[in-house]
Amino acid sequence: MTEAGRPVLGVTMGDPAGVGPEIVLALAAALAEGGRGAPAGLAEIAGRCSVVVIGDRGVLDERAALLGRTNPCVPVEGPGQIRSGAASEPLLLDLANVEPGSVRPGRVSAATGRAAVEYVLRAVELAKAGTIQAVVTAPIHKEAAHRAGYEIPGHTELLARETGTRVYAMMLVGGGLRVVLVTTHLPLAEVAGRLTSEAVEEKIVLAARGLGELGVRGGRIAVAGLNPHAGEGGILGSEEERIIAPAVRRARERGLDVEGPLPPDSLFHHAYRGRYQVVVCMYHDQGLIPLKMLALHTGVNITLGLPFVRTSVDHGTALDLAGTGRADPASLVQAVRTALVMVENRICE
Amino acid sequence: MTEAGRPVLGVTMGDPAGVGPEIVLALAAALAEGGRGAPAGLAEIAGRCSVVVIGDRGVLDERAALLGRTNPCVPVEGPGQIRSGAASEPLLLDLANVEPGSVRPGRVSAATGRAAVEYVLRAVELAKAGTIQAVVTAPIHKEAAHRAGYEIPGHTELLARETGTRVYAMMLVGGGLRVVLVTTHLPLAEVAGRLTSEAVEEKIVLAARGLGELGVRGGRIAVAGLNPHAGEGGILGSEEERIIAPAVRRARERGLDVEGPLPPDSLFHHAYRGRYQVVVCMYHDQGLIPLKMLALHTGVNITLGLPFVRTSVDHGTALDLAGTGRADPASLVQAVRTALVMVENRICE
Repeated sequence: MTEAGRPVLGVTMGDPAGVGPEIVLALAAALAEGGRGAPAGLAEIAGRCSVVVIGDRGVLDERAALLGRTNPCVPVEGPGQIRSGAASEPLLLDLANVEPGSVRPGRVSAATGRAAVEYVLRAVELAKAGTIQAVVTAPIHKEAAHRAGYEIPGHTELLARETGTRVYAMMLVGGGLRVVLVTTHLPLAEVAGRLTSEAVEEKIVLAARGLGELGVRGGRIAVAGLNPHAGEGGILGSEEERIIAPAVRRARERGLDVEGPLPPDSLFHHAYRGRYQVVVCMYHDQGLIPLKMLALHTGVNITLGLPFVRTSVDHGTALDLAGTGRADPASLVQAVRTALVMVENRICE
Repeated sequence: MTEAGRPVLGVTMGDPAGVGPEIVLALAAALAEGGRGAPAGLAEIAGRCSVVVIGDRGVLDERAALLGRTNPCVPVEGPGQIRSGAASEPLLLDLANVEPGSVRPGRVSAATGRAAVEYVLRAVELAKAGTIQAVVTAPIHKEAAHRAGYEIPGHTELLARETGTRVYAMMLVGGGLRVVLVTTHLPLAEVAGRLTSEAVEEKIVLAARGLGELGVRGGRIAVAGLNPHAGEGGILGSEEERIIAPAVRRARERGLDVEGPLPPDSLFHHAYRGRYQVVVCMYHDQGLIPLKMLALHTGVNITLGLPFVRTSVDHGTALDLAGTGRADPASLVQAVRTALVMVENRICE
C-alpha cells in the first residue's frame, strides 16, 4: 500500500531478451500519461493504484532507445520509496542484474533466464512483506531459466514453491470465458490417470473464490466432464461417475453453485452465452482451445490460491517479435487491470 | 436425378417419437412455398433440386395436426415417381412402417427405433441405385435402435457398413469452422492408444476431398497435435513426432496443402480467422468444443468417404422438445443446403 492507501502492483519485466521490456515500457508510458494514451484500458485505473516495475533499468533504457521511445519509469531506491509513490507515476525497482549492453533482443541466455527469475523472486519477497499487493508477470523463457539452473516448469510452480502453497490453480480469463484447469501441462494420455476427486473439488473451491475476487457475484460454476458426452452414462468412460461427480456433490454440500460433470462440447456454448461464469476443466486444451480461439493475445492468466494476487500475460517471450516494437501490450494491460480488481475485492472482504 | 436433370435429395424422417417429423414438416413447408417462408435459407436452392422425404405419412399427418399445421408432402408410389417430381415440391416416400396412432412424441420404443433405421436403409438403397444423389438424415435414437435389434453406434457406422466403406470420416461444419475427426466416440484415456499414422493420413486426404466437394478452392488443412503445445518437442508427449508428423509429411508428398501438427489452442484461433479451411482433430472434443461453442444448433454433420453425399443435423432426437413445435429446423435446413452444394460439386467434377 502507498501511504495514501492505494494498492501497489508489482510488474516483473520478464526475460530481458523477450518482449517483456517493451510491453512493460508501453504500459509505463500509458500510465505516465494518466492512462489516456494507447494502449487503451488504463484510464480508469490510473488513479487507483501505483505500479512498480521490478526489472533492470539498463535493459529498459536500451530497449526504449532501440525503439525510439523513452523510459518513463521513475527509479526508487527500495521498498520504502515504493510506499510513497505518487499515483499513476510508474516506478522502477532496478535490480541492476544485467550486464549493460549484453542483451540482444530475441537471444535468450542463461544470464537473461537468471535475471528474469530474480525479478519474480524479488516480487514474491515484496508481496510477502506487504509492500506490494499483487504480482503481475511478463513472460519468462523456460529454457533460459533451465540454463540458469532454475528447474521450474513455469511461473505458477515457482510462485507456489516460494510461498509454500500446496493448493493452487491456473485460471485463464479472456473472450468472455473464464476457465480453471484441474491438470495443466501433461501428455493427453496421462490426464485420466492423474485426475483425483480431491483435486477436482479443490479447483472448484478455488474457482468460486476466484470469481469472488474478480467481483463476480452469484456466479455459477460449470464442471466439465473428461470424456465425449461426459461419458454418456459410463459407455464412453467412467471418470465422470468415479471422480468428477463426487467432487461436484461435495462442492455443492459446501454451498457452492456448481453443476457437472457436463458434456464439454455443449457446455462451452452455454458458458460463452453467460449461463456459467467459470468452467472447471479437466485438461489444458479443454479450456484453452475455446478461450484462445476467442482471445489469443488478450487473455489473462491468474494464479488462484497464493497469499497474494498474481496475474500474468497469457503469451510467451515471443522472441521473433522482441526488439521490433510490434508486440501487443494488450494482455499485460489486461493483467494489470485484473490484478487491481482482485486486490480491491480482497481489501473489501 | 429428375428427368429435368435436377439432383434428388433424400431426407430421412428420423425417429418418429423425436423432433425429426416436425423439423421435416418445417423444411417441407418452406420448400412448398418455394423457399420464401421461414426457415430462411432455402430460396436459393428451391429450384435446383427435388427433395423426397423417406418416412411415414401417418406420423407426419399426426404431428402436423398436433401442431396445427398441414403436411405439404406429396406422396409418391415409388422410385419411378421420384424421378419425375416437380421442382421444390416436397415428395414423400411413405414406408408405412408405423402403426397409426401409436406414436407419443417424446416416447421412443423398439417400434420407433426400428422404423427410423428402416428409413435410413431405404435411403441407402435409393442412393446406391442412383435414384437419389444425397442422403440427409434427421436424428435417430441410439437406445431405441438397440431395442429394435440394431446394434449400431450411430448413423455414420450404419451407413459405412451398408455401403461397405472402410475409410470414412466425420466432418462437422458450423460457426465458420470445419473439423474432421480422426477418432470419435472413445473415452479420452483410449485416444492416444488408438491413433495411427495411417488413420491420420486417411483423414487428411478425406478432409481435402471434403473441401473440394464443399466448393472450397485452395483450402489449407491444419492438423492438430494431440498434446498441449503439440507435445512441446516431446516433453509433453511423443504422438506428434511418432504418429502425426509422418502422416502430415506423406499427405504433403501427395501434394496437399497441409500444416501440422500444430498446438491445438492457438490453431483454432487461426482457423476461426480464416488461415485454415479445415482442421483435422485427434479426438471428439478437440473439434467439437470450439465448433459447438459457435454453432450448437446450426451445425451440419457430413460423412466423408461414402459413395454418395451424406449430411445430417448435428443434434439428437431432443425428446423433451418433440411435439412442442419449438424444435429449430435450422440444422436440417443447413444440412439440405450443404448436401446440394456437395452434389453439385460432385457432378461438376
